Amino acid sequence: MQLGVCYYPEQWPRTMWADDAKRIAELGITHVRIAEFAWSRMEPRAGEFAWEWLDEAVETLAGAGLKLVLGTPTASPPKWLIDAYPDVLPVRADGTRWNFGSRRHYDISSETYRRECLRVVTAMAQRYGRHPSIVAWQTDNELGCHDTVPSYSPAALTRFQTWLRRRHESVEALNDAWGNVFWSMEYPSFEAIGLPNLTPTDANPIHLLDFRRFMSDEVAQFHREQIDVLREHAPTADLLHNFMGFFTTFDHYRFAKDNAIDVAAWDSYPIARTESIALPDEQKARYARTAHPDVSAFDHDRYRAIGSGRFWVMEQQAGPVNWAPWNPVPAKGMVRLWAYEAFAHGAELVSYFRWRQCPYAQEQMHSGLNLPNNELSPGGLEVQQAAREIAACAALSALGAPARATVAVVFDYETQWMFEIQRHGKTFDYQTLVFDYYESLRELGLDVDIVSSRVDLSAYALVVVPSIAVIDDALVNQIERSEAQWVFGPRSGSKTDSFAIPSTLPPGALQRVLPMQVLEVETLRPTLAPALSIDGARGVAIHWREHVRANGETHVDAQFDDTWPAVLSRGKVRYVAGWLSHALHRTLLEQAARDAGIETQRLAEGLRIRRRGDLTFAFNFGAQSVHVPAPADATFVLGNALLKTGDVCAWKDV
Amino acid sequence: MQLGVCYYPEQWPRTMWADDAKRIAELGITHVRIAEFAWSRMEPRAGEFAWEWLDEAVETLAGAGLKLVLGTPTASPPKWLIDAYPDVLPVRADGTRWNFGSRRHYDISSETYRRECLRVVTAMAQRYGRHPSIVAWQTDNELGCHDTVPSYSPAALTRFQTWLRRRHESVEALNDAWGNVFWSMEYPSFEAIGLPNLTPTDANPIHLLDFRRFMSDEVAQFHREQIDVLREHAPTADLLHNFMGFFTTFDHYRFAKDNAIDVAAWDSYPIARTESIALPDEQKARYARTAHPDVSAFDHDRYRAIGSGRFWVMEQQAGPVNWAPWNPVPAKGMVRLWAYEAFAHGAELVSYFRWRQCPYAQEQMHSGLNLPNNELSPGGLEVQQAAREIAACAALSALGAPARATVAVVFDYETQWMFEIQRHGKTFDYQTLVFDYYESLRELGLDVDIVSSRVDLSAYALVVVPSIAVIDDALVNQIERSEAQWVFGPRSGSKTDSFAIPSTLPPGALQRVLPMQVLEVETLRPTLAPALSIDGARGVAIHWREHVRANGETHVDAQFDDTWPAVLSRGKVRYVAGWLSHALHRTLLEQAARDAGIETQRLAEGLRIRRRGDLTFAFNFGAQSVHVPAPADATFVLGNALLKTGDVCAWKDV
Amino acid sequence: MQLGVCYYPEQWPRTMWADDAKRIAELGITHVRIAEFAWSRMEPRAGEFAWEWLDEAVETLAGAGLKLVLGTPTASPPKWLIDAYPDVLPVRADGTRWNFGSRRHYDISSETYRRECLRVVTAMAQRYGRHPSIVAWQTDNELGCHDTVPSYSPAALTRFQTWLRRRHESVEALNDAWGNVFWSMEYPSFEAIGLPNLTPTDANPIHLLDFRRFMSDEVAQFHREQIDVLREHAPTADLLHNFMGFFTTFDHYRFAKDNAIDVAAWDSYPIARTESIALPDEQKARYARTAHPDVSAFDHDRYRAIGSGRFWVMEQQAGPVNWAPWNPVPAKGMVRLWAYEAFAHGAELVSYFRWRQCPYAQEQMHSGLNLPNNELSPGGLEVQQAAREIAACAALSALGAPARATVAVVFDYETQWMFEIQRHGKTFDYQTLVFDYYESLRELGLDVDIVSSRVDLSAYALVVVPSIAVIDDALVNQIERSEAQWVFGPRSGSKTDSFAIPSTLPPGALQRVLPMQVLEVETLRPTLAPALSIDGARGVAIHWREHVRANGETHVDAQFDDTWPAVLSRGKVRYVAGWLSHALHRTLLEQAARDAGIETQRLAEGLRIRRRGDLTFAFNFGAQSVHVPAPADATFVLGNALLKTGDVCAWKDV
Repeated sequence: MQLGVCYYPEQWPRTMWADDAKRIAELGITHVRIAEFAWSRMEPRAGEFAWEWLDEAVETLAGAGLKLVLGTPTASPPKWLIDAYPDVLPVRADGTRWNFGSRRHYDISSETYRRECLRVVTAMAQRYGRHPSIVAWQTDNELGCHDTVPSYSPAALTRFQTWLRRRHESVEALNDAWGNVFWSMEYPSFEAIGLPNLTPTDANPIHLLDFRRFMSDEVAQFHREQIDVLREHAPTADLLHNFMGFFTTFDHYRFAKDNAIDVAAWDSYPIARTESIALPDEQKARYARTAHPDVSAFDHDRYRAIGSGRFWVMEQQAGPVNWAPWNPVPAKGMVRLWAYEAFAHGAELVSYFRWRQCPYAQEQMHSGLNLPNNELSPGGLEVQQAAREIAACAALSALGAPARATVAVVFDYETQWMFEIQRHGKTFDYQTLVFDYYESLRELGLDVDIVSSRVDLSAYALVVVPSIAVIDDALVNQIERSEAQWVFGPRSGSKTDSFAIPSTLPPGALQRVLPMQVLEVETLRPTLAPALSIDGARGVAIHWREHVRANGETHVDAQFDDTWPAVLSRGKVRYVAGWLSHALHRTLLEQAARDAGIETQRLAEGLRIRRRGDLTFAFNFGAQSVHVPAPADATFVLGNALLKTGDVCAWKDV
Repeated sequence: MQLGVCYYPEQWPRTMWADDAKRIAELGITHVRIAEFAWSRMEPRAGEFAWEWLDEAVETLAGAGLKLVLGTPTASPPKWLIDAYPDVLPVRADGTRWNFGSRRHYDISSETYRRECLRVVTAMAQRYGRHPSIVAWQTDNELGCHDTVPSYSPAALTRFQTWLRRRHESVEALNDAWGNVFWSMEYPSFEAIGLPNLTPTDANPIHLLDFRRFMSDEVAQFHREQIDVLREHAPTADLLHNFMGFFTTFDHYRFAKDNAIDVAAWDSYPIARTESIALPDEQKARYARTAHPDVSAFDHDRYRAIGSGRFWVMEQQAGPVNWAPWNPVPAKGMVRLWAYEAFAHGAELVSYFRWRQCPYAQEQMHSGLNLPNNELSPGGLEVQQAAREIAACAALSALGAPARATVAVVFDYETQWMFEIQRHGKTFDYQTLVFDYYESLRELGLDVDIVSSRVDLSAYALVVVPSIAVIDDALVNQIERSEAQWVFGPRSGSKTDSFAIPSTLPPGALQRVLPMQVLEVETLRPTLAPALSIDGARGVAIHWREHVRANGETHVDAQFDDTWPAVLSRGKVRYVAGWLSHALHRTLLEQAARDAGIETQRLAEGLRIRRRGDLTFAFNFGAQSVHVPAPADATFVLGNALLKTGDVCAWKDV
Repeated sequence: MQLGVCYYPEQWPRTMWADDAKRIAELGITHVRIAEFAWSRMEPRAGEFAWEWLDEAVETLAGAGLKLVLGTPTASPPKWLIDAYPDVLPVRADGTRWNFGSRRHYDISSETYRRECLRVVTAMAQRYGRHPSIVAWQTDNELGCHDTVPSYSPAALTRFQTWLRRRHESVEALNDAWGNVFWSMEYPSFEAIGLPNLTPTDANPIHLLDFRRFMSDEVAQFHREQIDVLREHAPTADLLHNFMGFFTTFDHYRFAKDNAIDVAAWDSYPIARTESIALPDEQKARYARTAHPDVSAFDHDRYRAIGSGRFWVMEQQAGPVNWAPWNPVPAKGMVRLWAYEAFAHGAELVSYFRWRQCPYAQEQMHSGLNLPNNELSPGGLEVQQAAREIAACAALSALGAPARATVAVVFDYETQWMFEIQRHGKTFDYQTLVFDYYESLRELGLDVDIVSSRVDLSAYALVVVPSIAVIDDALVNQIERSEAQWVFGPRSGSKTDSFAIPSTLPPGALQRVLPMQVLEVETLRPTLAPALSIDGARGVAIHWREHVRANGETHVDAQFDDTWPAVLSRGKVRYVAGWLSHALHRTLLEQAARDAGIETQRLAEGLRIRRRGDLTFAFNFGAQSVHVPAPADATFVLGNALLKTGDVCAWKDV
């Protein structure tokens, strides 16, 4: 368990730096991230680098025994660069250019900007790449934030056409794959293809999807170009990018492939996230001060997979923030709890944002570990407590590696894009569906891996696929070879790779192992809720329901009151023909876990547990104190069996 | 009763065509519409026509005994045309140009595009105009759909100025008619007049109205130009355009005048329409799977008038669609019911959209009579049933012509435009008011004609005018000559043709037959609902209420609790000084019908009846089974007196 | 008590003018405002003035004994001017130019337009400046209406850069004051600084604030340029501008300084205002026909300060209007009541909008004192009644000057801008908070002055500061010298003049008199409402809450249930650490008033009282009749002690 912090020396008088370094170290923090927005100070005028201040900051921090993470400053090109190359500014979907004056004001497809980025990153890497205290580098900052991917610029258009040529080889093949005969959308050449904005009605969904795939590749390539420079000059450092929670604009699996990152780092703001995502208002109300119990864990488990087992929290909420519709103060204990929660899910490092609240500019209402007057904030005091606890307890300071879970949940970025492009009903959201399944498993006390469908899943006893748009032969082969129980949710196998309905009808290739066909689908207004029972439990479908036909030996395990099948199975494979109300998802997964030989329990409301090494951690996000389900003879290394709101404990099973 | 279907040979392998034709004919379908989006296949490159595939498609279908409706392809100009003439792309109200990539991406005022359309239509008409199996031609597709009228292009501006010059003769006359002295809006010349977009606050309402009148004329002229070509080359075919439901952007009466169409065809999607229009949420919930009982009938009755008695359903919903906020599967029976309903209202042909669900592109989630795997869909099976029933029953296959109703409801397009331009309260919508009156009459078991105020109304016993902005002398003359009962709703006679308040106050010229004046009007937030009684029934005004004064011999039949008159009358003319809650509209129309000697009944909830020839049809849109109000000795030619949800029956009164 | 009316001779035939003048005078009206939208008639073509019609109008009105207010016509530049100088059109935040076709279509920063305005105003002032019947001049009309300030034009950019240079002297100083090191936002020169629109995420709040300060100065300077001309040519007239209610886009205190106005005139539309502002829906429902009891009074009291004691209502609602989401007819009596209410608050003149409803153009649904058919409207009849009452009663016709109140509420424009720029929670609105405090004081029967924090406050016994972003030393000095009770609300002292958090934490300099610090703040979703008691009264915080620490001798008077302090005090200074539910604000102010030796009472719901001279007026905005709290031996000069809805009475305490 290692603690870090984000620090911006350029924002404070040099006279404060030494004291800051000393106090950071004394607090028990080992890692400090710096520099990722400081381009205007690194290069005040075109080509004139000014490293002296950064040299001093690095030495001051290193001198206090701290390890450093250096950020490349490309998320905020300075004004002189924009004035020299105005085409670096990105273009909105309505054709307007964005302005300078905040951050992320660059077109990711601009070759001018790519060149400028490599220039500054190379200079920075040459100077600091082999510094012994610099243990990691971060590229840019939160790629895609503020909806800055995509850009609709001329540069994006040209590169999109090139990308399409590479993917489709001939324009005839593209017209065929896209079905452009529909509405006479056929293109005479790749040069004739435009971006899919400003169409009077829906653009072709595959046009939109290929544009999203292209933009996802652009993001990955933008990062990769910096990585190639950093690998050369900083050969021993961990290279990473700080991803965001619940963020799906690019495919993180593809981004991470071929060692583009050494560790998956992400920025965790659980309370603002809870307020921002599509949760029922009742849940937003209940968890306003603790954050939803699964909102951080969901991304911990996802980024652990993206980092091939290694993940950091690069920015951790340290108190109230400034960017959600409402920004409450976290309940007492949460700032500490989130650190333990991240560690329990396998984090190597939890780095708080930020050392001291900046009293000016855009983030002045964003808290840090210190108040603007330089006293520890309430969150800072909680971090101090956690640091002391960890230092005092060997079982906590040297955790074992997290074990592979027995349960996998498949999350797929392209599915998110396809169902955003084609929600069909305005309340359908794929990630929300995945989250609902994930929450159900966590309420059953299970540890979960969130994984890509393209990895080897043979070690899992239960594989849950809340939905996956395209089911290819490789996945069906995995199922056939697998011993696991498999659960597929609605819309699974409903599309081909070219965004069309499979010729055999959905669920497409899944029919090889589960003979059935989806005849019709429907989206449901909130007042339309087909009822059903599963094992005596009553519930309804919401958002989405399918009319399916069981073929061959497929069995109907549960049906809607109107007799349409609700759950179908053959052998170890289940299919759920609708988005079921939450309690039914839990019942269903309980059955599947039982069939997989996995023991479950029903945790108290707001309670979550997670195992790491030989420890079991418990976290109370609920409004009431609860007893944790520890064995009677468990040894507590942190806290005890009675857990108050916002508290955490950990025990060893004897 | 004839059945049709929409078919897109260009979207399927040629190897499927013959089987498709055979199966279409075997299903009992007689008419097939083709070609209306196929420009890129008819003319793959500028000037190079490729008719061979269309020749084969036509011959294949005709060879199976099918009659054809050919669509001109002008709703989707191909990419080479847009690249050659980029000014064909329309301009949005904010000044941005729309892009290629979907459909309807053309500026209806572009003279370039008009020329290109005539070129392709002429070529097509010359080739197919006299083909014996081609019984009808459709121009373009759903003119105005996706809010593509108006366009704010330079071409539209020039033509608008010309239109204004023709209407107003001198700019002084225009300044006077528009009242441009207000806010110094006077124009020095016609060339100085702009389009009414991007004004810091409201544009002059008559500026907006004249622009809407102009755009309505542009749509009609665009269609007319094609009709002139088609008449020449296809002299015996029925010429038509496929209109839309609840669509009021252009004046369909003016569009249809001077034989611009032979039959009014329209596209009927009852469930998506129910979800999309301004109905109370309670009704949207209740009728989510059956559609609102009057939502199709309303347009059947409207288009029957627009077609001077002849109307077709060119596209009929055949299952779930893709474009409403939510898209449920219709209740069992509805796909069949809608056909009978259309026939009962006088349709000659009901043509389903579409033969087979297209697995790719924008409408892949739009159902058809066949699933993408080419088996009949649930809707297809219902059509099969209907076709067999009709074939088996002479009384159904050879229906009499629909008789003129005894009740007329006046619908007026300019009133819709004026009250959209000047809602005055954000929940006031004219068409919704008309629909509320129409629904009341239908709940009373009455057949209704929806008509223009400009036709001869002398044959009706009851004329209901839910509102009409401008009451001219011609209409008052009709009232004076008429024997009918007349009911006028609020805002009637509230405007002059130049969008001003009449100098004698509203209801303007109506005062000649009903002396009264509207002193003040008010729009009502949902919490403000002045109460009243009519004949002991309690209710409220919603949306709109007027403070009126009865003059001369005018009698106050009902008043609000605050003593303002609610219903006024003199002799056969009634005026309703507010938008009353629904049950009061029904009570009021019941009284008026009684005074007109028309017998009414209160149908069970969700039940509707409609007479054609010697048959009475009954339709159950409600959640409960009901007994239809057939005489005890009626002869049923379809179904029986107990009607389940989604079912239809028909009987002869003996 | 003098009555006025707005009249537009150019909109009516000359044959009506003499009769209009006669009827206006007969009604008891003494003042008529004319000409403020008539540029196209004053100067029909560039440089060709046509004064003859205006001469006649002036003489006709003056001949009837009426006094005139002349408006400069610069709110509506005519089309020939726009055609000659298209750059006069303003630019929206998205970069689009607004069009001609309504009003306020000018860029306030356009130097071309400034020159044109001075040209027309000079010509007008030369001709009419010394006319004996013209007693006042109004510049432009409702500056800033329709969100027409700001403009994002090139002209605005250039002038903004100049303004910044003047304020900040060097770009280094600006970069420092703005904290531009954050996100590398540093500017190399003043010329490099842009407008704060179209940034991918939030612009720097101080960038936004300085732009608002600049735009506020632009508005004041635009007005001042006209005033300089008018002072020269109309040396004896009252010069004014007609402000709007609840309008805060520019700083009215700065606008009015250095005699830029002689009297503060404002346009009062209480019912539309009630519907438009951020009131709870329950209040909008309750007061839909009477307007909220404080919505007019709030601005009467504010503009009385802005006018240094002199204020007029330049436009008073005379019946239903046309621009709110819904527009009900006022309850009987309100049009009369509003005049008395304005007088009670100190108005010299109440001028109704408008003489006669205009039957055409944008405001045809806006009522006047006459209907379009020239009979007195219901509102006109109420004005007639009021005029007769006043004429018949010396105590009413010659009211004393309004006395300074014992209670002051501080309202600060920059605070509004800062908290709009940084709401932090989407339901936080500063003016709404001020209004809530004001309402509480008025419910306690108190007369209130609304004042700037920069004036001498030493004469007040109670000073209420619902919030003020920046607390400077001058204000603390006032507190120290003052004998008054002071109440500060949340966010007070939370910012520096450069939009940063004070280095000593909020409430900044207030700590000199009230030692305490705000550690953390939070915004509250509607479901999150920390509870507390004050003096046994239960309530909650809404929208905003602070975690504060009492330092030194500061006493915690009340605390939240979770133990955070809610009300703190030391001596005469109180601080409220949250936005409390309304009844708690009232309890708190009741305590503060008691401590200040001010007697309070709890008025019946909807009842308000206000003293002027030796009269006390009472107004009933509530749904029930109430008895007014007059002494038993009071002498009523208007009405009596039992007050119906919409009625007013006035008495002398004996």
